[in-house]
Amino acid sequence: MIAELVSVGTEILLGNIVNTNSVYLSEQCAGLGLSVYYQTVVGDNEERMKAVISTALERSDVVILTGGLGPTEDDLTKEVTAQLMGLPLVEDSHSKELLEKYMKQYEKNNPQRRITSNNYKQALVPEGSLVLDNHNGTAPGLIIEKNGKTAILLPGPPNEMKPMFEESVYPFLRKKLPETIFSQVVKICGIGESQVAEDIQDLIKAQSNPTIAPYAKVGEVHLRITAKGEDEKECKKMIKPIVRELKNRFGRNIFATDAEKSLEEAVVDMLKDQKLTLALAESCTGGEIAARIVNVPGASEVFGHGYVTYSNRAKRKCLGVKKVTLKTDGPVSAKCAREMAKGGCIFSDADICLSITGLAGPGGGTKETPVGTVFMGCCYNGKVITREFHFTGNRGKIREQATAHALALLRECIMEGINKK
Amino acid sequence: MIAELVSVGTEILLGNIVNTNSVYLSEQCAGLGLSVYYQTVVGDNEERMKAVISTALERSDVVILTGGLGPTEDDLTKEVTAQLMGLPLVEDSHSKELLEKYMKQYEKNNPQRRITSNNYKQALVPEGSLVLDNHNGTAPGLIIEKNGKTAILLPGPPNEMKPMFEESVYPFLRKKLPETIFSQVVKICGIGESQVAEDIQDLIKAQSNPTIAPYAKVGEVHLRITAKGEDEKECKKMIKPIVRELKNRFGRNIFATDAEKSLEEAVVDMLKDQKLTLALAESCTGGEIAARIVNVPGASEVFGHGYVTYSNRAKRKCLGVKKVTLKTDGPVSAKCAREMAKGGCIFSDADICLSITGLAGPGGGTKETPVGTVFMGCCYNGKVITREFHFTGNRGKIREQATAHALALLRECIMEGINKK
Repeated sequence: MIAELVSVGTEILLGNIVNTNSVYLSEQCAGLGLSVYYQTVVGDNEERMKAVISTALERSDVVILTGGLGPTEDDLTKEVTAQLMGLPLVEDSHSKELLEKYMKQYEKNNPQRRITSNNYKQALVPEGSLVLDNHNGTAPGLIIEKNGKTAILLPGPPNEMKPMFEESVYPFLRKKLPETIFSQVVKICGIGESQVAEDIQDLIKAQSNPTIAPYAKVGEVHLRITAKGEDEKECKKMIKPIVRELKNRFGRNIFATDAEKSLEEAVVDMLKDQKLTLALAESCTGGEIAARIVNVPGASEVFGHGYVTYSNRAKRKCLGVKKVTLKTDGPVSAKCAREMAKGGCIFSDADICLSITGLAGPGGGTKETPVGTVFMGCCYNGKVITREFHFTGNRGKIREQATAHALALLRECIMEGINKK
Repeated sequence: MIAELVSVGTEILLGNIVNTNSVYLSEQCAGLGLSVYYQTVVGDNEERMKAVISTALERSDVVILTGGLGPTEDDLTKEVTAQLMGLPLVEDSHSKELLEKYMKQYEKNNPQRRITSNNYKQALVPEGSLVLDNHNGTAPGLIIEKNGKTAILLPGPPNEMKPMFEESVYPFLRKKLPETIFSQVVKICGIGESQVAEDIQDLIKAQSNPTIAPYAKVGEVHLRITAKGEDEKECKKMIKPIVRELKNRFGRNIFATDAEKSLEEAVVDMLKDQKLTLALAESCTGGEIAARIVNVPGASEVFGHGYVTYSNRAKRKCLGVKKVTLKTDGPVSAKCAREMAKGGCIFSDADICLSITGLAGPGGGTKETPVGTVFMGCCYNGKVITREFHFTGNRGKIREQATAHALALLRECIMEGINKK
C-alpha cells in the first residue's frame, strides 16, 4: 500500500520551522509496512494545494496531510480535500460541543480575550468522515475514505498531531493493512559502527524476514529488526532468535532492547539496581554528561554531585587535583582524569565518579595534544581506570561524542564492578 | 522568481534522516527573495524521479535538487535531469582530475581499500552546464540552464552541500535576481513573545519595505528586518532606522543585532568586557546552563566552577545551604536559591554566581510547589536577587525554558551591576 505525506504551511517553505512531522510520520509508516514514495510541502494557497492534493490522491492509496486545519481563512486543507473528493462539509455536533467547552475554558483563563466566531469553522467536517478528537487543541483530525482512497487530515502542531496519530490513526492503518509489521530495536554502545556492520555481515546477507537494519547514532549503534507476519505474536516469535543471536555476538555492549530506552536511562537503571551513587567531574563537556543523567526522571535517587571544573583552579579546589599534575602532565592528561575521578569520589562520598578532561577546540591544540584529545577516568571501589580518545569535528561535535563515550565507559565500569563482587 | 526544492533519497522517505537541507535552502531562498512554492522528497527511483523533476521544471523557474549525485547505480539525479532537459552527458576533464586526486589520497589513507571504477561516473556532466567543485567530497555540483529554466544539482550530505551553496550557488542566484534582499536580526530576551508582538504592532501594521517578522525561540524573541533595494548598501540604510527604533523600545532586552550571536555568547562577551568571573550552581537544570556557557569558545577565560548540586546533601556540602532552609523552606524555594548563589560565590571565589533550583517533574509536584516551579538566584557584589518562575511542558521543556531564562537573568544582573558602578 502506497502512502504519501503532504505538509501544508508557508512557514515550512520559508525555512522558519523544521518539518519534524514528516520524519515522525515516515518512521511510523515504515514501521507499519506502508511504502512512502513522496513527501510534499505546499504553502497555504488554495490553487497550489489543489494541485498537490489531487496529484497525491491520484498516485497514492493513503495521503496523510498535516497542517491547515485551524480557524483562520488561510487554513484550507479540509476545504480543498473535501472538494477534491466530492464531499460537502457538514456540522459535527460532537466536535462543536468539544470546541465550545474548550473556548469557555480559554476565556475563563484569559478574561481579556474573546474567541472569535470563525472558530466554529473547525466543527465542520466532510460528510461521512471519521472525526478524531483533539485532546491538545481545537482542530479535530479527520479520516476520509472514498473510491479506495484514504485521506487522513491531522493538525500541524506536533504536540497535537503525534498523540492523535498514536491514539486513532495508527490503529486505523494497522487494521487496513493485510500483514502486521513489527520491529524491535537492539541498542549497542562501546563498539563502532563499522565493527558492528562487519560482525553482522552474514546475518544481513542471509536476511529476508525478519530484516536487520543498522543505524549509527553518536556513540551508539542501533539495530532495527523488522518482521512481517500475521499478527504481533507471530512477528515477535520471528524476532526472538535474532535478538538472541545478537546478544551472543555483542553481549554486554547491548544496553537496551527497546526503542524508548536511552543510554543514560540504562546507566541510571543499573545504578539503582546496584544501589550505587554517582558523581561526575567534567571539564571539556562542561555539564553535558550531568544534563544527560538528569534527563532521566528520578535520577536524584543515584546522582547527587556534579562538578564542572572548567579551570585548573576548580580542578584543584573541588577535586584535589595536584598542582604538579597540572604543571607536568597538564589538565588534558590521563593523570589529571585519574585524580579528578578519585577526588570526585572522595569529596562527594559517591560510590562511583566519572571524570572527563579534553580539548574541544577550536583553539589550544598542539602537536602532542591536538584538538579532539579527551581523557576519561572512572573511579569505583577505590580503583581508577582511564581511557584516551581522539575525536574529530567541531567543538560541539567533539563534546557530543565525548559525552556519549563517557556514558558507555561509565556503564562498562559499573558492569566490571558487578562482575567482581 | 519561483523556486522549488527537490530532495532525492529513500532514507528521507523512511524517516531515517531529517531533511535539514530543505530548511537551510528554504531560508537561503527566502533571504534572496526567491519564492519557494513547493518542496518535494522522492526516493531513488527513476520513474518517480522523472515525474517529480519534470513537474518541478514546468511550474518553477529555479529547481534546486539535493542528493543522488554519488557513484552508485541508485544515484540518478544528474542522469534524469539531463534527459528531461535534453542534454547529453559529457566528460568534464577538470572534474576527472580532481576525482583522481581525491581517489589517490583516499587509497593512501586506506591501503586496504580500492576505489571502484564506477566513481568515474561522477566526472560526467550535462553538456554546457556549469560545474561546481566539491571541496568536501567527490560529486561535483551542477548548474544547468535551458529555455529559461535553471536546475541546480547539489550533493546530499549537508557538509558538502552547504559550503557549495555559499561559495557558488548563492552568488549565482544573487546575480540572477533583479533586486537585493538583505535582512538583519534583532534578538530579545527577558520579554515574552506576546508582549513583543504588542509593542511592535504599530510597526508591523505600517510595514511595507523593510518588513519586520517576529520568531519565538525558547526564552528569546527574534525580529527579522528584511529590506529590498538596489544593493546591500541601500538595504542597510533602510534597515538602520528600524533597528534604532527597536533599540528605543526594547533597550537592554536586546542582546544581539546579528544572526550568529547566541545568548550565551552575549553573556560571555559581557563577562569578558567587565573582567568578571562566573560560577554556576545548578539543581534542576543539572548542568545545562554550564553546557551552554561552555558552548562558547574561550569560555574558560570567565567560567571556572560549576556545581551540579542535585541532592540536598550536595547543596549543603558544596554550596553551604543551611539544613534549616532545606527543612523549612525546602530545596525548591527562593531561600535555597539565595543560599546556593551566595555559597557558589564564596566557595569558587567567582565575582558572580547564578543559581537555579526547581521541580522539572514528572513526579514530586504538590499544591504549593507544582511541577514547573523554578527559583533562580544571582549573587553579585555580595547582594543576591531571586526570581520565581512557573513553566509548563514536560521535563525536558521545563529545563530548557529554565536554562534560557536563567541566562537572561544572569545578563540582567551583570548589567545592573555595571550601572551601579
